[in-house]
Amino acid sequence: MNSDEQAIRKLMEEWRRLTREGDLEALITLMTDDAMFLTCGNPPMTRQDFAAGFRDIAGKVRIESTQDVKELHVAGDLAYAWSKISVAMIAKEGDKRMERAGHALSVFRKNAGGRWQLSRDANLMLKPG
Amino acid sequence: MNSDEQAIRKLMEEWRRLTREGDLEALITLMTDDAMFLTCGNPPMTRQDFAAGFRDIAGKVRIESTQDVKELHVAGDLAYAWSKISVAMIAKEGDKRMERAGHALSVFRKNAGGRWQLSRDANLMLKPG
Repeated sequence: MNSDEQAIRKLMEEWRRLTREGDLEALITLMTDDAMFLTCGNPPMTRQDFAAGFRDIAGKVRIESTQDVKELHVAGDLAYAWSKISVAMIAKEGDKRMERAGHALSVFRKNAGGRWQLSRDANLMLKPG
Repeated sequence: MNSDEQAIRKLMEEWRRLTREGDLEALITLMTDDAMFLTCGNPPMTRQDFAAGFRDIAGKVRIESTQDVKELHVAGDLAYAWSKISVAMIAKEGDKRMERAGHALSVFRKNAGGRWQLSRDANLMLKPG
């Protein structure tokens, strides 16, 4: 595994940790300014939309996730990963727990400072019906 | 627009034309051998799965589609496109017509022969409910 691949895998780990900890401020720095999130049946979400959605739920639930990286490919300052993601949302009060799983296709960009960030993310998970 | 971008846009046009014409044999050549298709709430589909699904419906409907390419980025032998796709499936018998629209994130690879092919495709359209 080369250093770019290592950096991107570390970014994905960091993403899951910060999500679990509800640390939106740090999570935002892992995305490009123009990051776009595509989800099933919804309009594309910008980084601001992502932040608003995260704020809505971060106070109510803890988000645990695992990620099985099926493939990671780097070409210059561009990379993509295909992974299977499992998410559990665990209520901070009470015992409600909601789980879902699905695949994601993610595009990463290396910025001028040599740092990898998430740029485009297509998440194929269905919202729990 | 450089020649790689032009080639990929031409591939996308060709894809829509062959889909409309129901020409699976030619459509297959626009994908890498290991192409994977990710759709909402389903397991990933291989090229073989795609072909089986296409055969199921190609006799019954004509598939018209338009594609608004929001972004196309090339780095070496790798490229991705984000687009909004609108699809109409028009019954060959009777007057049934079904439309849907949604976003897609697609990864393209340039093969050893210098030809671009679709490699990974995440389609965020929901099946009509």
